[in-house]
Amino acid sequence: MIIRQSEPANLEMPFGELDGFFTPNDKFYVRSHFATPEIDPATWRLRIEGAVERPLELSYDELRARPMRTVAVTMECAGNSRIFLQPKVKGVQWEMGAVGNAEWTGVSLGDLLREAGCLAGACEVILEGADHGSIAEPPRPAGNVHYARSLSLGKARRDVLLALAMNGEPLTRAHGFPVRAIVPGWYGMAAVKWLRRIIVIEEPFHGYYQTVDYSYWEPGDGGARLVPITEMQVKAAIARPTQGEVVAAGGRYRVHGAAWSSDAEIARVELSTDGAATWADASLGEKSLPNTWRLWDYDWQVPDRPRRCSLMVRATDSRGRTQPMERDPNRGSYMINHCLPVEVEIRAG
Amino acid sequence: MIIRQSEPANLEMPFGELDGFFTPNDKFYVRSHFATPEIDPATWRLRIEGAVERPLELSYDELRARPMRTVAVTMECAGNSRIFLQPKVKGVQWEMGAVGNAEWTGVSLGDLLREAGCLAGACEVILEGADHGSIAEPPRPAGNVHYARSLSLGKARRDVLLALAMNGEPLTRAHGFPVRAIVPGWYGMAAVKWLRRIIVIEEPFHGYYQTVDYSYWEPGDGGARLVPITEMQVKAAIARPTQGEVVAAGGRYRVHGAAWSSDAEIARVELSTDGAATWADASLGEKSLPNTWRLWDYDWQVPDRPRRCSLMVRATDSRGRTQPMERDPNRGSYMINHCLPVEVEIRAG
Repeated sequence: MIIRQSEPANLEMPFGELDGFFTPNDKFYVRSHFATPEIDPATWRLRIEGAVERPLELSYDELRARPMRTVAVTMECAGNSRIFLQPKVKGVQWEMGAVGNAEWTGVSLGDLLREAGCLAGACEVILEGADHGSIAEPPRPAGNVHYARSLSLGKARRDVLLALAMNGEPLTRAHGFPVRAIVPGWYGMAAVKWLRRIIVIEEPFHGYYQTVDYSYWEPGDGGARLVPITEMQVKAAIARPTQGEVVAAGGRYRVHGAAWSSDAEIARVELSTDGAATWADASLGEKSLPNTWRLWDYDWQVPDRPRRCSLMVRATDSRGRTQPMERDPNRGSYMINHCLPVEVEIRAG
Repeated sequence: MIIRQSEPANLEMPFGELDGFFTPNDKFYVRSHFATPEIDPATWRLRIEGAVERPLELSYDELRARPMRTVAVTMECAGNSRIFLQPKVKGVQWEMGAVGNAEWTGVSLGDLLREAGCLAGACEVILEGADHGSIAEPPRPAGNVHYARSLSLGKARRDVLLALAMNGEPLTRAHGFPVRAIVPGWYGMAAVKWLRRIIVIEEPFHGYYQTVDYSYWEPGDGGARLVPITEMQVKAAIARPTQGEVVAAGGRYRVHGAAWSSDAEIARVELSTDGAATWADASLGEKSLPNTWRLWDYDWQVPDRPRRCSLMVRATDSRGRTQPMERDPNRGSYMINHCLPVEVEIRAG
């Protein structure tokens, strides 16, 4: 793993090592805002409270005894690829590897909410983690802040999972033990780790991690609006070749990678080897599910003459959304899905 | 005037010069976010649009021909007294003089909204100024941003004035010519200058100047919420003596100043000359109106012995709200109304 920050732990998968549909747990990126909490499963409780008829409090064993679902979900950090932004912006300098795909096993949040019984005025659900600390830079709330994020009640009921296991193994501490929310199709900031409280609320939540942080600007009449980041944007990434890789002139090279979107399947991946002048279709992997990445590859006939070459890839999803060529500056330092070149060096064999 | 910034113009009244119920126009503080727009009244139009049945477009002459109201309203900059915050914070370093009281003459916003006819789903009104520019520091919307702020429809209908005149004179350019919104009881950031559009909307507005800027944190279950700044907080300020003033030992000194609140009258002003150990009532001026300051004074018997002395004042309003002794850090760099000492030097006469 590439250590982007050691405290708190921010670890990136070297994306060139992509070699299967599922990302092994020890290669799955880690994004932390505060020190990793150490949680004793014997005393830990998950509370479902707020605007509900019957608040619930569940132990780890009680949660494990419930019906489980397993679902494959791709998770990308909202700041993945930030290192490529010009001009440079603050934040963890991820390259391409703050993304992974895993099979998550857990309890349906919708089932728990039905059991608790949301009040008629309920509109959102706050997911609160056990991780906490103080935030340095203003504007920021004073004192001790827990990582927390809200979802609409509709999304919370539809397909959110409270995952206890990742690729068949219990969650590790780094990945949110004992329980992590899995929010299909949304960027990773919604997948709250070390879950301790689920609070049903009757007014939209304007917490730190969906206003000052993890938000973007949506143009509108009378001025841009600050909007919480939610859905992943359609995106393809090249695993190999890697940036600066030396490729043998005149040979064949298997360019490959992954592509993903939100609430849609990947319908097309195109590759350009001439700076976006022409595009050719890549071959798509067989496995294709909404909210899960699709692998792709392309059998590249490398030019005979040594030179530098810029590879670019772009994805289109089943809802007709294609990656843009230009960066939208209203997205600040997040949601980075414009086409990014991978520069390679073609050398005589 | 104290020039806190020359471009854009940010000018402060030396608060020691307070000497009447109304602040003369040339001593009224000026708070600008962008360069002062130059507006030709012959071509300027005010538009009332968005979620309305009959959009309006009014020329300066048409607006002037309408029924007018005159109302006294005190306006304080939300960042007034910022220079006294510890640790130091970013922003214009106002002392006590980013506050003033004037008689404003103009057209009722409620009347115009009734004429335009708000749709059933309308909930807020955006006030947009002609002033604009780019914002440097992230998180910020890209490109050209107009100064804009929203009000609830209830507040917009209740008592907001579109002022054409200030203390009987047409507005100057610095004060928002041709039209400035006057929002009684709210901090000055709501009093949008150089008004050009009033947009009725059906969703709450989360614009830059009420999220990233001009907002504070309200504690709540699941984490603090970012809330737009609205109402002025109860506050008394000492005009004389000024910070560091030399006062003759053994004499009498007329300590005086002003106090204000929001949607309430000032009921009491107390002065302490012993570091908040004991308090004595100041005399209140006769003029007392909601949303307008109340002058006060106190006939101080200055001690005989030369020494340093710390004066403090605190106001209580007719709704029982008293200035706090401690700063609330959830307010960031705004809404500064905790009791602040004025240090004076008592010297032998």
